[in-house]
Amino acid sequence: MSLPDKVLNALAEVVGSGKLLTDEESLVHYGRDWSRLYEPAPSAIIFPKSAEEVQSIVKLANEYKFGLVPSGGRTGLSAGAVAAHGEVVVAFDYMNEILDFNASERSVRCQPGVVTEQLQNFAQEQNLFYPVDFASSGSSQLGGNISTNAGGIKVIRYGLTRDWVSGLKVVTGSGALLDLNKGLIKNATGLDLRHLFIGAEGSLGFIVEATMQLARQPKNLTAMVLGVPEFEALMQVLHTFQEAIDLTAFEFFSEKAVQLVTEHTGVARAFGTAAPYYALLEFELLNSDMEDQIMGLFETCVEAGYVLDGVMSQSIQQLHNLWRLREGISETLAPFTPYKNDISVTVSKVPAFLAEVDAVVAQHYPDFEIVWFGHIGDGNLHLNILKPAEMAAPQFFEHCKQVSDWIFKLVQKYEGSISAEHGVGLIKKHALGYSRSDMEIECMRQIKKVFDPNNVVNPGKLFDV
Amino acid sequence: MSLPDKVLNALAEVVGSGKLLTDEESLVHYGRDWSRLYEPAPSAIIFPKSAEEVQSIVKLANEYKFGLVPSGGRTGLSAGAVAAHGEVVVAFDYMNEILDFNASERSVRCQPGVVTEQLQNFAQEQNLFYPVDFASSGSSQLGGNISTNAGGIKVIRYGLTRDWVSGLKVVTGSGALLDLNKGLIKNATGLDLRHLFIGAEGSLGFIVEATMQLARQPKNLTAMVLGVPEFEALMQVLHTFQEAIDLTAFEFFSEKAVQLVTEHTGVARAFGTAAPYYALLEFELLNSDMEDQIMGLFETCVEAGYVLDGVMSQSIQQLHNLWRLREGISETLAPFTPYKNDISVTVSKVPAFLAEVDAVVAQHYPDFEIVWFGHIGDGNLHLNILKPAEMAAPQFFEHCKQVSDWIFKLVQKYEGSISAEHGVGLIKKHALGYSRSDMEIECMRQIKKVFDPNNVVNPGKLFDV
Repeated sequence: MSLPDKVLNALAEVVGSGKLLTDEESLVHYGRDWSRLYEPAPSAIIFPKSAEEVQSIVKLANEYKFGLVPSGGRTGLSAGAVAAHGEVVVAFDYMNEILDFNASERSVRCQPGVVTEQLQNFAQEQNLFYPVDFASSGSSQLGGNISTNAGGIKVIRYGLTRDWVSGLKVVTGSGALLDLNKGLIKNATGLDLRHLFIGAEGSLGFIVEATMQLARQPKNLTAMVLGVPEFEALMQVLHTFQEAIDLTAFEFFSEKAVQLVTEHTGVARAFGTAAPYYALLEFELLNSDMEDQIMGLFETCVEAGYVLDGVMSQSIQQLHNLWRLREGISETLAPFTPYKNDISVTVSKVPAFLAEVDAVVAQHYPDFEIVWFGHIGDGNLHLNILKPAEMAAPQFFEHCKQVSDWIFKLVQKYEGSISAEHGVGLIKKHALGYSRSDMEIECMRQIKKVFDPNNVVNPGKLFDV
Repeated sequence: MSLPDKVLNALAEVVGSGKLLTDEESLVHYGRDWSRLYEPAPSAIIFPKSAEEVQSIVKLANEYKFGLVPSGGRTGLSAGAVAAHGEVVVAFDYMNEILDFNASERSVRCQPGVVTEQLQNFAQEQNLFYPVDFASSGSSQLGGNISTNAGGIKVIRYGLTRDWVSGLKVVTGSGALLDLNKGLIKNATGLDLRHLFIGAEGSLGFIVEATMQLARQPKNLTAMVLGVPEFEALMQVLHTFQEAIDLTAFEFFSEKAVQLVTEHTGVARAFGTAAPYYALLEFELLNSDMEDQIMGLFETCVEAGYVLDGVMSQSIQQLHNLWRLREGISETLAPFTPYKNDISVTVSKVPAFLAEVDAVVAQHYPDFEIVWFGHIGDGNLHLNILKPAEMAAPQFFEHCKQVSDWIFKLVQKYEGSISAEHGVGLIKKHALGYSRSDMEIECMRQIKKVFDPNNVVNPGKLFDV
């Protein structure tokens, strides 16, 4: 499928010379995200430089009835930004400026192509902090983060991307420019359309500017890694610490993950004793009273049998090393061609849910090895199943489709989410009904029609209209 | 206007004996909120006891085409819950139970008629904290708080009601029951309809259950009152403290407010020196290091000329006394029959905006006295104009209509909100266009049609369909 020259010329005229690409390499590069399930097949890649150019592009799409796909850092894992059906990809690489900073409001006006790390670094230069952080921060763009309501490792303290967006300029699927909330903290003037666009995966329109809030810089961040004897003990440790102090992170991973990471990356174990599971806690260590308090909490956990051993970072270097045990997992697992799933349930349901998933996989595929890790303080589990070395990849993934079905049914049983933080896109579209009711999905469809009557923005993602 | 007996009988059948009232006293009581601009004229008051009963009521409204108005604590100030046109008021007084508490998730499942203070007290019993707090906490209900996204005095630290709702069950205007987000922290499965219902003022349907999150209890809350020489200095004080510590509140009020409150309530001034404006800061005082730090910040402000004098609470009693200077203002002003307005701009625009409002009022009505106070850390200003003693109330309010127009135009110029935290209801409906574009309002209208095609839930509030 490709577009007539007339349309391509009209698009090229909007953005000017060199900002419309149709070469094969660009089509492949900009036609897909980090997922590799769909063949990229866009008609063209277009690079607007302003909201007005985005409006003109959307108007052409409505006139000539073709689809537009947003492209940020292309780090998505759900094929939410894949163009597999001749769409025009709208890439925000040339709208990547930090436009304005307001110190007394701690707000930054950003174009959608600003890279997460660029904002993090900018915040640091102002002695402030942009707290949303995750593995792909070095290349993911704000527009994409907002469209998937990105979460990551600090959600327990700082919330999700949603919580840091005080203003949003969007171009809807019908080409209207909406200036939503304008950086206000308090604004009780009816439906908050800003929150509708956050997490919409581009189904309603394009984000063309965002006002992001920054936080105070955390002081003396300190991590603990604790070995625990069984999964349930993780929840007790979480509860014990959370009652007393503000955690900035509470991650977990299994002994299997530690074995693989230490072998693969050369990073040292936190301590000698092996334990079935580990918790990684992070907090601001503000003074010596607090150090005493934390040692007290640690001892309480040891006495109660929740914790076998533990270590606390004494320097930034040690902090980074402890984090590497957790952050090295994805990279370490990659060579095992793992099946991955990103799911969540409410925190208290985590142990029972995890046990059921383990049981169903063990029953049907006793040779499949599961590596769990994730943001347990948010109920967010990253499930990884390693491909047995002797099994061919296509066969493995065929089996894993079956595993997915079981898992989604368990998610539904536990009233969880089939996508905690990676979005739905194309990959989980068929499974949306396990987390959202038919009536909800029908409401979403009708809301899409309000903003995008001709179905030109990111068509076929999330749901079919 | 009243409903045929057939319809009233059908409604009575849904809720059972004694739960449908049509006596005059009930019609007046449940037909209005704290605003007094509209004559209450409902057809009946109905008290459902379950989501299913709410669904049945909505279905009857769709069948017989009559309007329904939600009623919580009736403490609204924008006539958002007024029934002035023969509607049936749906009052949640019998759906006022706390259904469930989950300690490890710090979540509470509540019926919509739970009173704010009831939730605050419940949280305290669990050694936790529900941080949304405002003047009417003793009678406002959660359903109403959520429908107006209530804010109050702790927003600078804890955000708005929106930030504490992890799950929402709603009955839409077409009678469907939606179970939104189910208490999850991370849930990236498309449009977040929960956030659409928060702040919707009942225009999309009824809230029939909410899962609310609780926070850790603050420790050793401590307040400072500082006298400052001019309005701009307040912003410098805010900036100085906010850079260094986490404030739980940052309020301001004028010397005129202090004069009136000390006279009216008998509460003592914070200190002898009178200053044009005062800041009230609140924070957790965690240890003696922090006390030194705060004294250092205070001295920095004094040396820079931002602060003239100040005092810090040394006990809970003193904390309460300092707060009374701020909290006594509304009650103190009531006998002056004040004109009130609740508006916001972004924090850095506050001084210029306030000066322009002062100037325009002084120019046209030099005998009008303005008392300002509010949540300056959020850019939220409460404007009060005292009625001159010799002026008749109707004449005063006629003049104030003109003042409102000027103020709304200034709000628009400064890209602020015509309603920071009180909602739009009937009272600010005509002014919605000063804060929201025609296109936004049209989107809201169409979204209402998705959920309420026959315009039966809170018709005529926010906007006309």
